[in-house]
Amino acid sequence: MQNFTCYNPTKLVFGRGTIVQLRDLIPAGKRILMTYGGGSLKANGVYGQVKRALRGRRLLEFGGIEPNPRYETLMKAVAVCRREKVDFLRAVGGGSVLDGTKFIALAAPYQRGDPWDMLAKHASADQALPLGCVLTLPATGSESNMFAVISRASTREKLAFANPCVFPQFSILDPVTNFSLPRRQVQNGIADAFVHVIEQYLTYPADAPLQDRQAEAILKTLVEEGPRALRRPRDYAARANLVWCATQALNGLISCGVPQDWTTHMIGHELTAFYGLDHAQTLVVVLPAVLAHQRKVKAKKLVQYAERIWGVKTGDKAALAIRKTEGFFRSLGMKTRLSEYGIGSEQFTELAARFEQRGIKLGERQRIGSRQVRQILQLCL
Amino acid sequence: MQNFTCYNPTKLVFGRGTIVQLRDLIPAGKRILMTYGGGSLKANGVYGQVKRALRGRRLLEFGGIEPNPRYETLMKAVAVCRREKVDFLRAVGGGSVLDGTKFIALAAPYQRGDPWDMLAKHASADQALPLGCVLTLPATGSESNMFAVISRASTREKLAFANPCVFPQFSILDPVTNFSLPRRQVQNGIADAFVHVIEQYLTYPADAPLQDRQAEAILKTLVEEGPRALRRPRDYAARANLVWCATQALNGLISCGVPQDWTTHMIGHELTAFYGLDHAQTLVVVLPAVLAHQRKVKAKKLVQYAERIWGVKTGDKAALAIRKTEGFFRSLGMKTRLSEYGIGSEQFTELAARFEQRGIKLGERQRIGSRQVRQILQLCL
Repeated sequence: MQNFTCYNPTKLVFGRGTIVQLRDLIPAGKRILMTYGGGSLKANGVYGQVKRALRGRRLLEFGGIEPNPRYETLMKAVAVCRREKVDFLRAVGGGSVLDGTKFIALAAPYQRGDPWDMLAKHASADQALPLGCVLTLPATGSESNMFAVISRASTREKLAFANPCVFPQFSILDPVTNFSLPRRQVQNGIADAFVHVIEQYLTYPADAPLQDRQAEAILKTLVEEGPRALRRPRDYAARANLVWCATQALNGLISCGVPQDWTTHMIGHELTAFYGLDHAQTLVVVLPAVLAHQRKVKAKKLVQYAERIWGVKTGDKAALAIRKTEGFFRSLGMKTRLSEYGIGSEQFTELAARFEQRGIKLGERQRIGSRQVRQILQLCL
Repeated sequence: MQNFTCYNPTKLVFGRGTIVQLRDLIPAGKRILMTYGGGSLKANGVYGQVKRALRGRRLLEFGGIEPNPRYETLMKAVAVCRREKVDFLRAVGGGSVLDGTKFIALAAPYQRGDPWDMLAKHASADQALPLGCVLTLPATGSESNMFAVISRASTREKLAFANPCVFPQFSILDPVTNFSLPRRQVQNGIADAFVHVIEQYLTYPADAPLQDRQAEAILKTLVEEGPRALRRPRDYAARANLVWCATQALNGLISCGVPQDWTTHMIGHELTAFYGLDHAQTLVVVLPAVLAHQRKVKAKKLVQYAERIWGVKTGDKAALAIRKTEGFFRSLGMKTRLSEYGIGSEQFTELAARFEQRGIKLGERQRIGSRQVRQILQLCL
């Protein structure tokens, strides 16, 4: 096992009817900015529940945070925070709203120039507005971590940051808010959580059997509960299990003391930036290709994964595991090939070159450079 | 799944050579009281490491906190805190030192009478001295939770409390500090962690498959790594895995949204109070008896446990699971019957009556009263 630090101060309030607790979770007297995305919030009743829970409090609103939240949009919210002296952010939505709100939280008090530098130049920031969240879409784990991914339209970039100041103080997870989600968002959420786990698990053995099993626990549960939630959208238990899997998939637990490989996410972000695919759509295309390309590096864990998740007992276990993984995504109703989106190899060289330009090597051994990314992209066609 | 709140703000610093980080983890200028138990700390070098890490800081010491830490001892430390205006507690040791330090942390600023009321009368307390810990014995999970158990010699009582104010701010977990532990303490630690998991897992199904698998992940790892650590006391990875299992066993994670049954601990505390057995010694005696007595209530989960942990495929799965559990404890070198300690049934009536006196019913359905406790004790002989 590798040395590690494990820290996660977010209070998770989980279950049916918990939105009303907002009242007690946000200290009295705060000037609250409520951030959210589109109109679905009003249609499904969550908007009303949130407003009622905070009746009588000083509450401003900033809606319209888009999927793959954009710097350009978020800076408008930053201006509101500064102008109105907002001192608490309350995100209502899924990972995009939450990621965007984390950026707002850091950017509002940021005094040292353009807040985009925090992403593009890793400029440090050591204070943020406090934030809390009402999560309506299980997927990214953003409700209980310090990560966010922000896009910038003008430069076609999609970059991530990590900062302990943006752990939400609390997150309310009421699975009932998921009942009305469009099928595509549920598919995406299952896939996103699944790939998060894989990227912290499918590397090389590190004599960390508990972390392995904790990761496998999430994978097996997603394989069972994902299809159940899609089949029965109003099945509370299935929704609750999905929400809990997605949170546990990226809250810092299963990565403790083990190597990680975020190649799939890193390539996926570029596919979103170049072609506009949903985040999870990119992941299910890229992951099987990464596993195939990295079969030798990941040989031991691929066999373990084949046996423990897919019950593979004989044959070429690694190959079967990769095929089962792609089959699982397809069983959710997702496309797993770029060609299915009408995307060809025309821009692969430009896309792959970005990693070299940024001086980044991917993979648990940092051996995946632009050349390998191009090879992986070919496998995605 | 039941509704729940999940909150754990303790920062865990894990790995070889991490004690030196104490310097950065305790804010400058604090008046620190270092609490510990006996002399083993000086023999194994941890005492020296801690002192070096805090060279130049205002550091008082309070040693001599005993196993099953006593109110009478701890109140002496409370007097030191008050007199010397201590404003940071730093525990070095295992669960007893840590539990004792949690009591000190709450008792020092407590103004409303005898701090024992917090245990005996559930008197509320909403402030505590901040505390951090260097853990030298994996077992209780106290390094990452808000629980403590304190004994009072004068009344032969052993009582627990829970208070979010006593989450350690940080805990340093360096598995190397475990190399020199006596065999008995390692056995006890494995058993304690194992039983913690069982008490949050072996109840009735709550449609919480992820929590079930997270619990099973710890159980399976303890079954593998426990014997390995006993066989090879200086095997770093085995020690590291034990430490991580013990922490995960009682940090509030696997209990999220599921029923719990702490009968074994509650009866075990009385056995310690009456007969002076080690905490874990009581648990491995009581657990098989509780499972046998509660076979019907726990029928479904017993079968799942038999299949998933012990690989039982046919026969009376529940009975086999109970036998395997007792066999596991014996394979660690522990006694599983009160008669092996020369204890008979003479005091069972008095012991069992305590639950009625306190108005407590045990079990996931609150159906275990004094009469059932007496029956369970008979099964422990």
